[in-house]
Amino acid sequence: MVYRDLQQRFSIFGIAERLIRFLAKDGLVYYGDAILPSGINEIARTTKARVIQGDIFGQHHVTDTIAEVKMLLAPLSRNDIRSVRCIGLNYAQHAKESNLPVPKYPVLFYKPVTSVTGPFDDIPVPLMAQEGKGLDYECELVVVISKEARDVPVSRALDFVLGYAVGNDISHRDWQIKRGGGQWNLGKGFDGWAPFGPGIVSTSLIHDPNALRISTMLNGETVQSSTTKDMIFSVAQLVSFLSRGTTLLPGDLIFTGTPQGVGMGRKPQLWLKDGDKVEVSLEGVGSCTNHVVFLSKSSTKL
Amino acid sequence: MVYRDLQQRFSIFGIAERLIRFLAKDGLVYYGDAILPSGINEIARTTKARVIQGDIFGQHHVTDTIAEVKMLLAPLSRNDIRSVRCIGLNYAQHAKESNLPVPKYPVLFYKPVTSVTGPFDDIPVPLMAQEGKGLDYECELVVVISKEARDVPVSRALDFVLGYAVGNDISHRDWQIKRGGGQWNLGKGFDGWAPFGPGIVSTSLIHDPNALRISTMLNGETVQSSTTKDMIFSVAQLVSFLSRGTTLLPGDLIFTGTPQGVGMGRKPQLWLKDGDKVEVSLEGVGSCTNHVVFLSKSSTKL
Repeated sequence: MVYRDLQQRFSIFGIAERLIRFLAKDGLVYYGDAILPSGINEIARTTKARVIQGDIFGQHHVTDTIAEVKMLLAPLSRNDIRSVRCIGLNYAQHAKESNLPVPKYPVLFYKPVTSVTGPFDDIPVPLMAQEGKGLDYECELVVVISKEARDVPVSRALDFVLGYAVGNDISHRDWQIKRGGGQWNLGKGFDGWAPFGPGIVSTSLIHDPNALRISTMLNGETVQSSTTKDMIFSVAQLVSFLSRGTTLLPGDLIFTGTPQGVGMGRKPQLWLKDGDKVEVSLEGVGSCTNHVVFLSKSSTKL
Repeated sequence: MVYRDLQQRFSIFGIAERLIRFLAKDGLVYYGDAILPSGINEIARTTKARVIQGDIFGQHHVTDTIAEVKMLLAPLSRNDIRSVRCIGLNYAQHAKESNLPVPKYPVLFYKPVTSVTGPFDDIPVPLMAQEGKGLDYECELVVVISKEARDVPVSRALDFVLGYAVGNDISHRDWQIKRGGGQWNLGKGFDGWAPFGPGIVSTSLIHDPNALRISTMLNGETVQSSTTKDMIFSVAQLVSFLSRGTTLLPGDLIFTGTPQGVGMGRKPQLWLKDGDKVEVSLEGVGSCTNHVVFLSKSSTKL
C-alpha cells in the first residue's frame, strides 16, 4: 500500500525536491529542481537547476541538463494553477488580535489565479486600492496539491500534497471588510496580490508543516514572527476539510492563514505604502521579497 | 474602430452563435455551433451541430462538418474555465426578501471550477450538505468572458463578453451563512453545484442582457420568476467593476446573482430534497434541468 502510493507519487511528480520555475540565462522559462550552492539552504540564492521536462502535473522527469537561473518566477505558471483557496483566522493569536472568536470550521475565501505572482515581483496597487487606508501584508504557508483529492481523511491528507511554499496574502482592509458586503474576496484578489515561492519544497524534505517558523519583515523590521504550530486547523486538517464534497485538483493552492502581527491588528495600525519592501519567510522554504508599487493613472489600461 | 473590434472578436471566437459542447453519437466530445430544429428556438432540443475545430479561446473555426448530438455537456470544459465569480444580492427584490440593504458595490464570491457541471447533470449532495436544512436553488444569468479585460469602462464592457448562459447557484444556507465564518464560498462550492448551459448564446444574438425573463421551476412549479431588468448592477457594470485592478481571463464565468423567490426567502422556507427536479431558464438562452441526488455514505470515496 505504502509502496504503491510512493510509486504513484514519483510517477506523477518526478523527484524534484525544490521545484522552481525560472527564467534562464538562455532566455527561456523552465521548471527545474534547484541545485543549492554548497552549504546554503536557501532557494533564493540558487544559480543552477536541473531542468524538468514534461507536464509538471502529468508525465515529467528531472533531466541531467543543468540551466543557469537568471530570475526565479512564481513556482507554478498561471496555467498550472487551478484554484487559489485561502483560509482566514487560522492562527489562535491572530484571531485574538482581530477580536474575533476562534472559528469552529475553517473560513474559506478565494483569490483568482491572476493574483498569483513571483517571489521577487512588485506588488501593483491599482487606484481603487489606494483609496482609504488598509493595505496590509500576511505571511502564509502555502500548500500545493499534487493529485485529485476528495473526501480524504486527515491521516492521509498529506499524501495529496506536492510541497510547501511561502506566500503573502496582500489585503486591502476597507475593500475586504467594509466595502465587500462582508465577503473578503474582492479586497484580496487584485492582480499580483498573491506572491508565492521562492520554490515548492517537497513533502519528502518537510515532514511536519506545522512545526515551522514563519515571519514578515517590513522595510527590514520584523512585524510578524510566529510558528505554524499556532494554526487552529493543521495543514492535514485543512486539506481533509476542503476535500469534503469538493475535489481538490493538482495545482490547487491553499494559503493557510496568517499569524498575529498584521498591520490591522497593531496599535497604531500600520499600512503598506508605495515603495515599501515586504519579505515573508517560512523555515525550510525561504523568502519572497516584494516591493509595493502604487500604479499611476496612466499605467491603468484603457 | 468598430470594424477592428469586430475583426478581433471573430478572429478569436469564430462565429458560433450558440456555442455548445456535446457528446456526439460517434462517442467523441466536441465543441459545436448548435443547429436549431426548424421553428424551434431551444438549444436543449438541438440534435445536430457544426463542429468547431481548434482552441475555443484561441485560433478556431466553425467547420462544415455536422455531428449528431447525443448529450449536451457543460458548454465549456473544466480546463477552459479559469475562475467562477459570483455576485450576491444583485436583484433589488431578492435583497428585500433577504432583509438586507441594497449593496453599494457588487458583492463577490467564488466557486471552484469543480463545481461546474452540465445542463442536465445530477446535482450531487455530499453527506456534509445533507446535515441541517438549507439546500437552495438560484437561477442566474451567466456571463462568459471572451478575452482579457482589465480596467474596462462600462461603455465597452460587453465587448469582452463571449455570450450568455443560464446557471444554478446551488447553495447550502447553513454552510454558507452560519458555519462558514460569514464567508459564503464553502457552502456554495461543492462538486457539481454550478450547473450551467445549455449553450452560450452569442452577444450577436442577445444585445441587451438586462431585458430577459429569468425563472426557476421546482418539480414543475414556478418558484422564481423575474427579469434581469431588476439587477442592481447591470451586466456591463459588473464586468467593468470586476475588471478594476483585476484581469478577467477568457473562460472566466460570472454568475450575476438571483432574483427573489429562493427557498430561504419563502414563508414557509422551502429546501431542495433528494430526487427534486429543478429547472432554471433564461429568455433567449434556454434551460438547465437537473435532479438533486443525495450521495450515500458508500458513494463517498476513500
